[in-house]
Amino acid sequence: MMKFKSPPVNSLSLEFLTEFSISLEKLENDRACRGVIITSALPKIFSSGLDITEMCGVEHSSECWRAVQELWLRLYGSNLVTVAAVNGSSPAGGCLVALSCDYRIMADNPKFSIGLNEAQLGIVAPFWFKDTFVNVVGHRIAERSLQLGSLHPAPEAHRLGLVDELVPEEKLMEKAAAVMAQWLALPDHARQLTKTMMRKAVLDRLVAHREEDIKNFITFVSKESIQKSLRMYMEMLKKKKS
Amino acid sequence: MMKFKSPPVNSLSLEFLTEFSISLEKLENDRACRGVIITSALPKIFSSGLDITEMCGVEHSSECWRAVQELWLRLYGSNLVTVAAVNGSSPAGGCLVALSCDYRIMADNPKFSIGLNEAQLGIVAPFWFKDTFVNVVGHRIAERSLQLGSLHPAPEAHRLGLVDELVPEEKLMEKAAAVMAQWLALPDHARQLTKTMMRKAVLDRLVAHREEDIKNFITFVSKESIQKSLRMYMEMLKKKKS
Amino acid sequence: MMKFKSPPVNSLSLEFLTEFSISLEKLENDRACRGVIITSALPKIFSSGLDITEMCGVEHSSECWRAVQELWLRLYGSNLVTVAAVNGSSPAGGCLVALSCDYRIMADNPKFSIGLNEAQLGIVAPFWFKDTFVNVVGHRIAERSLQLGSLHPAPEAHRLGLVDELVPEEKLMEKAAAVMAQWLALPDHARQLTKTMMRKAVLDRLVAHREEDIKNFITFVSKESIQKSLRMYMEMLKKKKS
Repeated sequence: MMKFKSPPVNSLSLEFLTEFSISLEKLENDRACRGVIITSALPKIFSSGLDITEMCGVEHSSECWRAVQELWLRLYGSNLVTVAAVNGSSPAGGCLVALSCDYRIMADNPKFSIGLNEAQLGIVAPFWFKDTFVNVVGHRIAERSLQLGSLHPAPEAHRLGLVDELVPEEKLMEKAAAVMAQWLALPDHARQLTKTMMRKAVLDRLVAHREEDIKNFITFVSKESIQKSLRMYMEMLKKKKS
Repeated sequence: MMKFKSPPVNSLSLEFLTEFSISLEKLENDRACRGVIITSALPKIFSSGLDITEMCGVEHSSECWRAVQELWLRLYGSNLVTVAAVNGSSPAGGCLVALSCDYRIMADNPKFSIGLNEAQLGIVAPFWFKDTFVNVVGHRIAERSLQLGSLHPAPEAHRLGLVDELVPEEKLMEKAAAVMAQWLALPDHARQLTKTMMRKAVLDRLVAHREEDIKNFITFVSKESIQKSLRMYMEMLKKKKS
Repeated sequence: MMKFKSPPVNSLSLEFLTEFSISLEKLENDRACRGVIITSALPKIFSSGLDITEMCGVEHSSECWRAVQELWLRLYGSNLVTVAAVNGSSPAGGCLVALSCDYRIMADNPKFSIGLNEAQLGIVAPFWFKDTFVNVVGHRIAERSLQLGSLHPAPEAHRLGLVDELVPEEKLMEKAAAVMAQWLALPDHARQLTKTMMRKAVLDRLVAHREEDIKNFITFVSKESIQKSLRMYMEMLKKKKS
């Protein structure tokens, strides 16, 4: 099991992203490990996504974005069984992490919400966030949700198919373990090849356009208007937590 | 707001299509305008679609079909927030107009129906009608509905995801205004880029095959058997209205 | 109507596949025939799919797999209206047959299940099984179901959209005839062209990769571990029946 722990809001800083990718790589290469449950060690928040206020200077920003790409390529393409136990809110990059798993269980608490809310911050979710989202909820729901930058409360997220299951918060880990057991009952090799068959087209697309995608991100995020709206947003998230 | 008004059934004649496209272009270029609600000024019918009985001679028919393409390219690719307030039946081209908006609200009246019913008339919906439909309801529902040329009564249309919401007829415009306000709360730029990301592949496909698509349409529609079945259909629609 | 009858479990042997394809071809060329209902003459089982234990030697196995491809190309691309009356369990290849029809009705019996359960047997459903499945239930449901090799009891299959309708077993054929009548009310030509438009991309993909797909299958199925798990599975199916 991997528990996110990066106070105050599990934001995906460069340090955190790098650590996450390395841990995942280790598990991937550990023959004794066949699956991973991803959850948060912090109350009320699964992960707040990328901390874009951290982005200063083209070089550092590029490095950060490359690390997000790296994490997604590893997680979405992982040979492990990946279960997200979403025990708090999960906007933007946090939602992407959940979407990239094989199965998503969320605490049945209408105060927790999840979604790719980039549009609300004046930014555009990159195409591979979109592709991952479409693969889970279909084109129509993705189109509306991305345009509105919706954060869906848990019950709505479940209705839309964004998460597979809701359980009372105190049963979340128990349920995640049961789901993991169900998936591990399958022979690894066939399951892994099947997963690759389903996800390869979308993974390949980022691999083919990686540098272009970094350039897009840098151009966008370095606009003063965007910087300002992001600073306000992160402040709000931190205040809400405390 | 744009109100269709072209008695008796708001059929998409060349004149009407041209006027619609020009109005849309004007709104698109008007910096004070950020969204448009599309509805009908006639009772019981949103739009009956293309008036194919108008098609005489290859040249005129080509011009008409090009105008339908033009309208769709503008509407599906519009930078404005587009809301369809479907206050009556909406077969064929009328359904396409609704499908091309960002959000569809329909009067909760089981007598009103909506669908791409071309197959019932012996004609085939062109690929870009199909692509637009699949993007809204998914492949399976589109496959069945297109093959059967189904006209779905409002409650069924809602269940299938063909429209997003049903409201009592007298609340339709109020609700459309509320939805518009919700969408306009988002920053335009990010919303527009997100919309483009979702729709570009399908728009590009028509742009790449426009002349071919016109030729197909002309070949098809000039068959005597098709002409006859269309004449009967339009007569029936007009009778129903009066 | 075509009734599968190949005791004990309607497994798709080379002989059976060939016979099925020839019958389908005959109907396709018979101008008096516009539709076909596919059902089973055996109790409790629609079709158990390919009998992979039959596969001995590269040559025979290749021939078998080519026959499965052939059947699918014919059935999924058929100009006839095709209705599956699923009156028993329908794993693997049996499920593919049902998925390839225009409409699926299943006996409302929770003991009957349907699904592409290849992963449970340690094998991977080929890409065109996957494409057919995704076209019916969408990407997310297909991804989960294929990875888990799920066999869905009838009520669940209906909820997921894998079958279109459930009816009491004794009403199955009556209902299938009614559905057929509904589909036959449409003019053939437009319906057929519409169907082709919806299915062509997926059909073309197998046509383009047919030999490669046979090679993959042979490599996979000739592994000793796979052979063993398949023998156990077929034994179990036969026992369950008797």
